[in-house]
Amino acid sequence: MTQTTARPPGRPRSERAEKAILEATLDLLGEESGVAGVSIEAVAARAGVGKTTIYRRWANKEALIVSALAYGKDPLPEPPGHSARADLLELVRALAAGRNGPHGRCFHNVVGGAEKFPALYERYQHDVIEPRRELMRGVLRRWVERGEFRPDLDLDVVVTLLVGAATLKTAEEVLPADWPEQVVATLLHGIAL
Amino acid sequence: MTQTTARPPGRPRSERAEKAILEATLDLLGEESGVAGVSIEAVAARAGVGKTTIYRRWANKEALIVSALAYGKDPLPEPPGHSARADLLELVRALAAGRNGPHGRCFHNVVGGAEKFPALYERYQHDVIEPRRELMRGVLRRWVERGEFRPDLDLDVVVTLLVGAATLKTAEEVLPADWPEQVVATLLHGIAL
Repeated sequence: MTQTTARPPGRPRSERAEKAILEATLDLLGEESGVAGVSIEAVAARAGVGKTTIYRRWANKEALIVSALAYGKDPLPEPPGHSARADLLELVRALAAGRNGPHGRCFHNVVGGAEKFPALYERYQHDVIEPRRELMRGVLRRWVERGEFRPDLDLDVVVTLLVGAATLKTAEEVLPADWPEQVVATLLHGIAL
Repeated sequence: MTQTTARPPGRPRSERAEKAILEATLDLLGEESGVAGVSIEAVAARAGVGKTTIYRRWANKEALIVSALAYGKDPLPEPPGHSARADLLELVRALAAGRNGPHGRCFHNVVGGAEKFPALYERYQHDVIEPRRELMRGVLRRWVERGEFRPDLDLDVVVTLLVGAATLKTAEEVLPADWPEQVVATLLHGIAL
């Protein structure tokens, strides 16, 4: 019989605390008062932890909010590269599914508050949004290199078209079932005859 | 000499009051508290009018907010129809310019608050957004009818692509000067080689 280190069942305590802290932050961020309503005190109280537990991991409220926003977004898939159409479809489907997530208001509050909290907004863009855009640019680049997409594409424009088409409508609006297919077909072949 | 009715210089008093009321509503709506912070009392106080002046024209807070949102958006141009590319460019440029408007946070607050104020959101969509989308669909339809755009286009998808590409980035992000041209070129001819 192999000797194993005794380990309590379930998640370690620090991981559970971290999850509670991030969820408490998202809860507060999604309320009417948005960014202004988030404080280390309020998060600690809602998560049932001490303030020092939070400060051990996050230097300030801004860092905590950015971590919570990253935690609140499902990661984008890395499409397998079998076909350009299938890769784009996978991205658009994931983006469209993400718009119905439970934390939509958090992101709205941060984006809508960009003017008032520019440092937070910039960090959110840099840490949360930019890696997602880079993943999408990577997919596009792959198909440019394989000679299936125009070599002169402005990748940032294409990423914005993909994201906009999938996320512009709010969770309140039901998208037609074939929306991702229509978006990808329109983008692949353009609208001109 | 022709007899003319005496008329005081400048705008009539009721028009000035209306402007003050709509601007006060936008001011309040753009604050942290968003929709929840707008009340007929608060608008009256900020606009320097009596509550009855507001109730004479708007049945309730919701109707007032929708009027203010319509007032806060520059109207879209009706493109002249000389060429498909020029028509689209005019729309994308107007949409992109609109994203830098002074009332961006108001729209964010209403869209972000869609879940909490669904009736207001629906009325905003119906009265303010839908006529703009219909104008854009009309431009697309014109070029489908003239045989320049694919006849099987999903016009709602194309409108969403146009709007998303022009407005997804916040006013804090500076768009490259050729952004509208790149968006229109990408949409016209697609990304596939």
